[in-house]
Amino acid sequence: MPYFDAASAAPLHPVAREALLASLDEGWADPARLYREGRRGRLLLDAAREAAAEAVGCRPDELVFTPSGTQAVHRGVAGALAARRRVGRRLLYSAVEHSSVLHAAEVHEAAGGTRAELAVDRTGRVAADEASAALTPDTALVCLQSANHEVGTEQPVEEVAALCQEAGVPLLVDAAQSLPWGPVPGAWSLLAASAHKWGGPPGVGLLAVRKGTRFAPQGPYDERESGRSPGFENIPGIVAAAASLRALRAAPETMDEAVRLRRLVERIRTRVPELVPDVEVVGDPVRRLPHLVTFSCLYVDGETLLHELDRAGFSVSSGSSCTSSTLAPSHVLRAMGVLSEGNVRVSLPYGTAEADVDRFLEVLPQVVRSVRERLGVPADVAATAGGAAAAPAPHEEPDEPAGLVVDSLGRRCPIPVIELAKVIGQVPVGGTVTVLSDDEAARQDIPAWCAMRDQEYVGERSAERGAAYVVRRRV
Amino acid sequence: MPYFDAASAAPLHPVAREALLASLDEGWADPARLYREGRRGRLLLDAAREAAAEAVGCRPDELVFTPSGTQAVHRGVAGALAARRRVGRRLLYSAVEHSSVLHAAEVHEAAGGTRAELAVDRTGRVAADEASAALTPDTALVCLQSANHEVGTEQPVEEVAALCQEAGVPLLVDAAQSLPWGPVPGAWSLLAASAHKWGGPPGVGLLAVRKGTRFAPQGPYDERESGRSPGFENIPGIVAAAASLRALRAAPETMDEAVRLRRLVERIRTRVPELVPDVEVVGDPVRRLPHLVTFSCLYVDGETLLHELDRAGFSVSSGSSCTSSTLAPSHVLRAMGVLSEGNVRVSLPYGTAEADVDRFLEVLPQVVRSVRERLGVPADVAATAGGAAAAPAPHEEPDEPAGLVVDSLGRRCPIPVIELAKVIGQVPVGGTVTVLSDDEAARQDIPAWCAMRDQEYVGERSAERGAAYVVRRRV
Repeated sequence: MPYFDAASAAPLHPVAREALLASLDEGWADPARLYREGRRGRLLLDAAREAAAEAVGCRPDELVFTPSGTQAVHRGVAGALAARRRVGRRLLYSAVEHSSVLHAAEVHEAAGGTRAELAVDRTGRVAADEASAALTPDTALVCLQSANHEVGTEQPVEEVAALCQEAGVPLLVDAAQSLPWGPVPGAWSLLAASAHKWGGPPGVGLLAVRKGTRFAPQGPYDERESGRSPGFENIPGIVAAAASLRALRAAPETMDEAVRLRRLVERIRTRVPELVPDVEVVGDPVRRLPHLVTFSCLYVDGETLLHELDRAGFSVSSGSSCTSSTLAPSHVLRAMGVLSEGNVRVSLPYGTAEADVDRFLEVLPQVVRSVRERLGVPADVAATAGGAAAAPAPHEEPDEPAGLVVDSLGRRCPIPVIELAKVIGQVPVGGTVTVLSDDEAARQDIPAWCAMRDQEYVGERSAERGAAYVVRRRV
Repeated sequence: MPYFDAASAAPLHPVAREALLASLDEGWADPARLYREGRRGRLLLDAAREAAAEAVGCRPDELVFTPSGTQAVHRGVAGALAARRRVGRRLLYSAVEHSSVLHAAEVHEAAGGTRAELAVDRTGRVAADEASAALTPDTALVCLQSANHEVGTEQPVEEVAALCQEAGVPLLVDAAQSLPWGPVPGAWSLLAASAHKWGGPPGVGLLAVRKGTRFAPQGPYDERESGRSPGFENIPGIVAAAASLRALRAAPETMDEAVRLRRLVERIRTRVPELVPDVEVVGDPVRRLPHLVTFSCLYVDGETLLHELDRAGFSVSSGSSCTSSTLAPSHVLRAMGVLSEGNVRVSLPYGTAEADVDRFLEVLPQVVRSVRERLGVPADVAATAGGAAAAPAPHEEPDEPAGLVVDSLGRRCPIPVIELAKVIGQVPVGGTVTVLSDDEAARQDIPAWCAMRDQEYVGERSAERGAAYVVRRRV
């Protein structure tokens, strides 16, 4: 049963399991105590810190363990901002950061700070020169992920770090996705990561704060972990996390594995658009994580797609609105301006069998087809949509300036786009279709559909309920 | 090698170990995902929540898991205070709470709130009627531990909870020490605890917030754990924590074990003052945790005492100033007004062998004697101190109003008290000894010595450096 969601959590690495078991009997006592059980715990903790620091590329006294990557980000952002309060209160971050950064930014804003987003291009990548322009004198902190968790695009961390260094602004790198594959280069100031992304156990994150970076921990004080992460240390978890990270780094096969997974991902990137009509593969095709690929399928409901793939034995995730509790599409796909409906993220764990990838490529086209059929999408809607215009139905008035109006109010993604695709052939070239929709995803997916289907997206007008999206038929 | 510091961390319970191993392969995936690995994790998490809630005595949807007891307290206090901000900003807590409560209170004060302490008696117990008087209309939250972590005294939680309920003020109970022995009775509103205190793994705490309690989580938002504890869930740890708590509760031998440990502790309480001269056993003799006993030894340096006990094979802890990074005695002992020097806390883990306790009682007197010898305490200083006055040395002027002055500046606990004990016999009954000391512990230990040695503590005067403590010889 292939699990293809390593970017969410990787199965426990065998080395992590062994180290966890070995340290359960040695690592339960308080490492602050001076008796033998405490000293043993302290030794384990110190050794784990050294191993993790080496893998991160920092000094052991620059690194603390936290209970999660999320808390590493929260505490890192808060501590860096507080220490630079006199310089300024502006937090700058890319529009595609992990939600932990966005949530830290919300809290900062609620406390009177300001925040600004760095836009990304259609591949999800920040432009270093835009970062440079955005580095105003009151910028207290910049946050930039090393690679995106939803689409795999690598960010220009080294360049942005150099710009930040020049401007005297600290850079916090969320390295959660890339750390399993290698250290983050460049002059970053803070770095956060999460052990369960590299096959360590859940319950362990890490925060590195390089010497010379001003840092004022926030929240209630605790003497543990240099005052930067309160609460009794989870030593068995920490030992397992550090051991597995070291194992990944030390093993010569890690590089081979990156190459192998990159090849498998490349196969998915190439084959999926060949096998499935109306698919958009998103993210940078070259500067990307080795193991992650994301694509979106027109006229498909992400939740049903995930459910059907799960039934077929494949565990993947999605940034589609219907798979989110807020019924809004992923902010990453939104910032990239790409299609969000029928979105699938495949992230291959270490050791993924080639045969499983091939089987996925076998299963996917059938699954997408069946979901489309159930949604009532005519098999030839794509062809029809882009083909010759059918004669308008007698009750339509295509010559009217307003053109054809499709009322999709109250209907969720992907219905508004399906409705649009069904009727576009009914207006003459140059005529318009206006889609009324109160679905959050339509704002993103109707323009994305236009780009994919070579139609013209005219724009959005406000409407009594939801919004009116106007499309002009071009082909 | 007997480990007698269960109040700090208990060795892993066999059930916790088993449950942890069993859930490592099932509990690593994201429980928010809908695919099979996520669903399995969710099932484990839900089952653990039910088991923990049953043991706590609350509903499963009232309980969330946190990465530590410390974080449970920090988040519980912050969330309860924020939700009652309009009512008032006063935080009331006992003077002997765990440092996590004090640290949460410091942050609250720094943010503009106010705080007030409930005093305790010499046994470390809060008086419920004093709590009643302190419940002013602007009180937003009361914090009271179920039992004290340093001296074992049980607090009148049920009575205080009833008073709080009447006044409409929520009560947060830090149940870290008592939860292994049974649920906390009464109408508390919030409850915090820590798994490694009951033999669960490190890295797991719990926070219960009873329905009807207003609660506004603080800090960056996260959808996990009802928005009350951010970060990816440590499911294997949580499963192990819940399983071991349930095992303790379900086992008929837990009650027997409490009775058995209480008897062993009683033996220590009785025998130590018989075997070791100049010892004060502290904490309530009856209303106390079954497994914990604390005593202080005059003329002894706590750090050396711990070191020697460790060499002899016993792991215990201490609230003496020399064992703390701040060189201040434990705030618990200070609030109780008891001796802090030579302080030893013995907390017996589940299953402690009777023979180990007997061996401890054999070893302790020798260890204390040798530490006293090394500190140059005459073997008969106690007798001498309380005995007939020696003739004053010629250079002393005992008839001068100021009496004898001992300069202990720059010398740490227990030296000032030893110096005092050495010279008290040199002044006539009615004469005074003034001890100059800049050691934080002297403020507490000189009055405590007076009470133990039946001498009169006159008071403290400010001095050029440190303080001057005046003692009048009574016997």
